[in-house]
Amino acid sequence: MNIIDIINKKRKYESLTDEEIKYVIDGYLNDEIKDYQMSSLLMAIVLNDMNNDEIYSLTKYMADSGEKLDLSPLGNNVVDKHSTGGVGDKTTLIIAPIVASCGVKVAKMSGRALGHTGGTIDKLEAIPGFTVNLTQADFIKQVNDIYVAITSQTENVALADKKIYALRDVTGTVESIPLIASSIMSKKIALGAKKLVLDVKVGKGALIKDLTAARRLSRLMIDIGKENNIEVVCMLTNMDIPLGNNIGNALEVAEAIEILRDHKEGQLRTLCIELASHMVSLGLNISYEEAMTKVLTNLSNGMAYDKFLELVKYQHGEIDKLPQARSKYEIKSMTEGYLADIDAYKLGLLSMSLGAGRKNKEDAIDYSAGIVIGKNIGDRVNVGDVLMTLHTQKEVTNIDSSIFKISDEKVSEEKLIYEIIK
Amino acid sequence: MNIIDIINKKRKYESLTDEEIKYVIDGYLNDEIKDYQMSSLLMAIVLNDMNNDEIYSLTKYMADSGEKLDLSPLGNNVVDKHSTGGVGDKTTLIIAPIVASCGVKVAKMSGRALGHTGGTIDKLEAIPGFTVNLTQADFIKQVNDIYVAITSQTENVALADKKIYALRDVTGTVESIPLIASSIMSKKIALGAKKLVLDVKVGKGALIKDLTAARRLSRLMIDIGKENNIEVVCMLTNMDIPLGNNIGNALEVAEAIEILRDHKEGQLRTLCIELASHMVSLGLNISYEEAMTKVLTNLSNGMAYDKFLELVKYQHGEIDKLPQARSKYEIKSMTEGYLADIDAYKLGLLSMSLGAGRKNKEDAIDYSAGIVIGKNIGDRVNVGDVLMTLHTQKEVTNIDSSIFKISDEKVSEEKLIYEIIK
Repeated sequence: MNIIDIINKKRKYESLTDEEIKYVIDGYLNDEIKDYQMSSLLMAIVLNDMNNDEIYSLTKYMADSGEKLDLSPLGNNVVDKHSTGGVGDKTTLIIAPIVASCGVKVAKMSGRALGHTGGTIDKLEAIPGFTVNLTQADFIKQVNDIYVAITSQTENVALADKKIYALRDVTGTVESIPLIASSIMSKKIALGAKKLVLDVKVGKGALIKDLTAARRLSRLMIDIGKENNIEVVCMLTNMDIPLGNNIGNALEVAEAIEILRDHKEGQLRTLCIELASHMVSLGLNISYEEAMTKVLTNLSNGMAYDKFLELVKYQHGEIDKLPQARSKYEIKSMTEGYLADIDAYKLGLLSMSLGAGRKNKEDAIDYSAGIVIGKNIGDRVNVGDVLMTLHTQKEVTNIDSSIFKISDEKVSEEKLIYEIIK
Repeated sequence: MNIIDIINKKRKYESLTDEEIKYVIDGYLNDEIKDYQMSSLLMAIVLNDMNNDEIYSLTKYMADSGEKLDLSPLGNNVVDKHSTGGVGDKTTLIIAPIVASCGVKVAKMSGRALGHTGGTIDKLEAIPGFTVNLTQADFIKQVNDIYVAITSQTENVALADKKIYALRDVTGTVESIPLIASSIMSKKIALGAKKLVLDVKVGKGALIKDLTAARRLSRLMIDIGKENNIEVVCMLTNMDIPLGNNIGNALEVAEAIEILRDHKEGQLRTLCIELASHMVSLGLNISYEEAMTKVLTNLSNGMAYDKFLELVKYQHGEIDKLPQARSKYEIKSMTEGYLADIDAYKLGLLSMSLGAGRKNKEDAIDYSAGIVIGKNIGDRVNVGDVLMTLHTQKEVTNIDSSIFKISDEKVSEEKLIYEIIK
């Protein structure tokens, strides 16, 4: 077997065998297959596709290429959740305690942020004292004790996926449904998931641009799940709607608390309730409607918020010491009309420049920094109304005025959740 | 501009601009663009193709990426010839003196061999004393003096093409008409060609498998030629027919002499006459028929052979000292029938194992080693007839009996030359 023959097969639209895919993954991990050969093969896969058998093999060998977690001591009602990229992972902060309060175990491993996207771990670290580096034993014990734990992801899971993902990022081979599906699922398999709700983001700003692609990706992840005894439910959601009003670590924790205390309406709450209900339905093996009743009950009776406080306390966080920015700047509208669009990408960049994110891995984060958006899409905007409040320790100059699009006519509300596939 | 955006454009079937292609070639040559990015882009080009404007730009920047030769001091009747890969470059040995004897200048830069394919330079070095490293000044002077010179190719021509070609070889991105066309033509442009006859090999053993692909490649090289003021004529020829009977350096020189002395018929002679006639037609601006008359005349009156002797003498070769192998082994047929096929690839490997070729760049060549084939396709073969004679200093063992295919029925003769495109 040699890599050039394998590349040539894929180039000619032929399928690769299980042995060939194993050879590629093993060879790439131990550097016998070079980056320039892997990237050529990846581009051939991007353009000539893979069939399901090829994708199952790819996922399997990537999942096997690092440490594997065994969550079986936690029993059968453990549920995981994943979102396919995009700004704002704050849903995890809200959903994990809701779901745990309903009697479903949430053993969550999360990542850190780089660039304008936020990471759950960074948000939790905005809470003074909060420990994010749990040992595997402590992690399992905590989930058994209080049904929820959130820890930073081990570096040694699905090592081939990690190496391939880094290569895809610099070789224009990111946008491929087989490669996206196998990357997500290989990690979930390695992390021991058995029940999984996937939030598949669709939109012009997302990796997945349209519903056709989103449906194929969803079906594929469900099929990979079946091959690996993982129950998968996919929610196809609108990426182009900004979720919630707060951006920045401590500010997002504060917003999560508002929702957990049932003090805030809106699309972030709606999405969290739907995601949580699917997780509870999977975890307890009950209908979606029953699950949603539990979720809504625990939001209104305070049990979800109590679970959040319990989680924070168990991981040594002091929620009453959430940091606040020294200075706040209000950015006011100079025109009138209706808020038609908010550019989430530019907002992310602005938030980063205020100190809320890191450009490089080594950068320190100002946990108090961020943005609070004053209006929602469709709201009436008058001259002088506050569009956003900037929280920062830095000097604020040169705010990009194109972040908010204000139009004369009220735009019709966009759909938040397109469909559920299971 | 950045390489990832450029790769993504090509991935999405968009065309690259002249500036983008310049950026790629410059960046790759100075290592700003990495091998793994270039190979990803190359695979995207292989699968998503390039339009003519893209190919012109690619060819131009590759041609400009190294030394350039100026042949204008030689005037307007200089003609070059190139063959698209394959075993047996011995046509150059025969054609160059024929064409020169007709009053057309042949300033030929040739390469060395690696593996089972032969290089013109190695064959000439089989002639004791023959100098293949001419300075540029001596090269030009010799062509002016006797109308023909053959020297080894400078290492510094079309450096981007050289780097890209080496990468394509190990990344399954060889088979692409735009990449093949731009690679050949960039070198020819850099070497100063103005009139060019291209022998496009077609067949299952060739880079170009069918006539459709061969026609596109030919049209493309003609179009690239037009863009660069080079007159190009393409001959589409059958790759699957073995040309001539001798393989091995001194043996091929001997066979070239046989044809130049008009002592040998057959398809090698036919091909050489056709190629030479097209070159003479281009060089003297006369009709193909007139050119062929000159070629045939100079073969029969000895002028072509005299030109060969003049060339050898000018480059200090001693043709009467051509080396001969110490031992010869006759391989005889054990069956009877008609010779139906000869496996040129296996013959090449056998010849190499006898000492005629090098596996690695550093290996020494035994110039006397090689093979003389005793039968032509279609010949009657009886038990005990000599199929081939091996010339070597080595022990001969384990001859692959599948080199010759002998069948009960006489096969119909295959076409040698498919068509001419200009």
